[in-house]
Amino acid sequence: MPETHAHRRGALRSLITESGVDALLVTDLLNIRYLTGFTGSNAALLVHAGGEAQTVFCTDGRYTTQSASEVPDLERVMGRASDRVLADFAARAHSTYGRTGFESQHVSVEDHEALKVRFDKVTLIRTPGLIEQLRAVKDEVEVAALRSACAAADRALADLLAAGGLSAGRTELEVARDLENRMLEHGSSEPSFATIVAAGPNSAIPHHQPTGAELREGDFVKLDFGATVDGYHSDMTRTFVLGKAADWQRELYDLVHRAQAAGTAAVFPGADVSEVDAAARSVIAAAGRAEEFAHGLGHGVGLEVHEAPSLATTGVGTLSAGMAVTVEPGVYLAGRGGVRIEDTLVVRDSGPELLTLSTKDLVAV
Amino acid sequence: MPETHAHRRGALRSLITESGVDALLVTDLLNIRYLTGFTGSNAALLVHAGGEAQTVFCTDGRYTTQSASEVPDLERVMGRASDRVLADFAARAHSTYGRTGFESQHVSVEDHEALKVRFDKVTLIRTPGLIEQLRAVKDEVEVAALRSACAAADRALADLLAAGGLSAGRTELEVARDLENRMLEHGSSEPSFATIVAAGPNSAIPHHQPTGAELREGDFVKLDFGATVDGYHSDMTRTFVLGKAADWQRELYDLVHRAQAAGTAAVFPGADVSEVDAAARSVIAAAGRAEEFAHGLGHGVGLEVHEAPSLATTGVGTLSAGMAVTVEPGVYLAGRGGVRIEDTLVVRDSGPELLTLSTKDLVAV
Repeated sequence: MPETHAHRRGALRSLITESGVDALLVTDLLNIRYLTGFTGSNAALLVHAGGEAQTVFCTDGRYTTQSASEVPDLERVMGRASDRVLADFAARAHSTYGRTGFESQHVSVEDHEALKVRFDKVTLIRTPGLIEQLRAVKDEVEVAALRSACAAADRALADLLAAGGLSAGRTELEVARDLENRMLEHGSSEPSFATIVAAGPNSAIPHHQPTGAELREGDFVKLDFGATVDGYHSDMTRTFVLGKAADWQRELYDLVHRAQAAGTAAVFPGADVSEVDAAARSVIAAAGRAEEFAHGLGHGVGLEVHEAPSLATTGVGTLSAGMAVTVEPGVYLAGRGGVRIEDTLVVRDSGPELLTLSTKDLVAV
Repeated sequence: MPETHAHRRGALRSLITESGVDALLVTDLLNIRYLTGFTGSNAALLVHAGGEAQTVFCTDGRYTTQSASEVPDLERVMGRASDRVLADFAARAHSTYGRTGFESQHVSVEDHEALKVRFDKVTLIRTPGLIEQLRAVKDEVEVAALRSACAAADRALADLLAAGGLSAGRTELEVARDLENRMLEHGSSEPSFATIVAAGPNSAIPHHQPTGAELREGDFVKLDFGATVDGYHSDMTRTFVLGKAADWQRELYDLVHRAQAAGTAAVFPGADVSEVDAAARSVIAAAGRAEEFAHGLGHGVGLEVHEAPSLATTGVGTLSAGMAVTVEPGVYLAGRGGVRIEDTLVVRDSGPELLTLSTKDLVAV
């Protein structure tokens, strides 16, 4: 893994240089994990455009052993206020770190004031989003982790269904816990986000939190859930019917199913993100349901469950090979029920690679 | 509950006035929850020192129903970029909101730049920590939630022990999941933090993450875990011995036990936080183990699992009645094992009120 992290730091150096600064002070822990592999709760990293020799990692004494193992390839300094420690370090070598960028979308105004004092002869420059820009395109180490997380979710769902876990009389909360425990059994370190289990009319609430409401015959049951493996998140939604599907349920399901397929088909390198959204949305609009699909089509997924890019009407930019995104149209009929179908997939030159493999055919349980 | 939130906003108004500003723009979601009861994922709040009539809450269309129910007592405006919406609102009424404070320890440099443009004729003033200062002292609604969270953890531990859940051959991960599931059964919405189960030599790592390592006869087993009820967190550590305790284990346990009692006895309104730390630390230092207790004695606990005050050597300030804090000394012998004993308690005039009630006597299981 050290090579992977060194490679990512190399890619970042190009962006640092393009931003017109000598170095970047990285303080966001997920970005530090991405660039070094460090998983502790306190760290800072000073990446110099010139190379590894002037790049310094800082954590505190609680992580002496762990950081030696996880970050064997960088100079380490130890200290509790890690950003301040690196500010002092840069200030002492201000001829090298004269213009230092910082993650201005993560650093608070108070921390910025404290850093400005410490940095002394160093000029601090706002350079937001450089690492997030890199993170949007996954390398194969990341795709492997995403694949494992998606597989854990797929297997948990298969086990749940095989065990009769979706049945009348169970509560939304019971099903949510059941699903989360089964993901743990399949290697998830924790749920990707608070599992959504929404039965009957609740399925019409896009982000319903599970309650003590019981599943009943004839209900739509919407499950939106994910696993976490090596810090990478999966995200999948499936909607089932308990017992026999009514005609309106088949129609609604079929509509969302077609929209999801249209959205997926529009995913290719170079595609404008708003046009991917439009590909799915137009199917729903053609059925007169545009108003009932009131959220974006999808989002990037990785170390965060929501990250760049945003596949939405207001989204800006194009897809690149290696981006991992969700495609998740939904139609919600207030008071009756709703359907959402969501996959996590990777943008490939040869067409999207599905990571969530559970069937998207309507399953009546 | 609306009265509780109105009362908290009233207390905040005194701090706003003392800070020399007309109003405070609140953007931290936990602080918004504290002041309004709103539990959604997007909101902002503009609290005017003059009263409720000029105080405005903003969230987006996803939360129309939820916010009407949770925040029935404030003027509501709707919009996705809630901080920007309230900035525009204040800018239009700049004679009322001419000097507006903001949570400069939470607002990023980028968001601040965007807000400055929007606020136009309003002067934005850095006013960090006002609400955190209030939150350090809990009202009885908060203590009740903390008490429920601590009870859920106590009951889960009792169930785990009664079921023989701490036994040789089980893995740290299995025990952690077992404990977390039992907390859910007793009303916890989610674990307070990633449960620590550390067996044998791993117990000497203060914040060990559970692994596939098996519990073995003669091991120390350290459990650090908590439940969440109504957003409030419990935090408790207990250390057990599997089978018969060796002499060194009894000695180590007794030392930490005495230090924990000494720390607890030093908790009273007006006590200097560093002296509370010293009361426990001196017991451990007298036994020649000062080096093996390398973290602070405790921390405030509430809507966050770590919040003000900090009971540490470097801590500043004094305790007040109503503060909820942990007292958690530990001694860690690298390669052999460690003991930590931790309670959550409330500072009272009549002496500390214990919220975590599981026995602190050495239990051999």
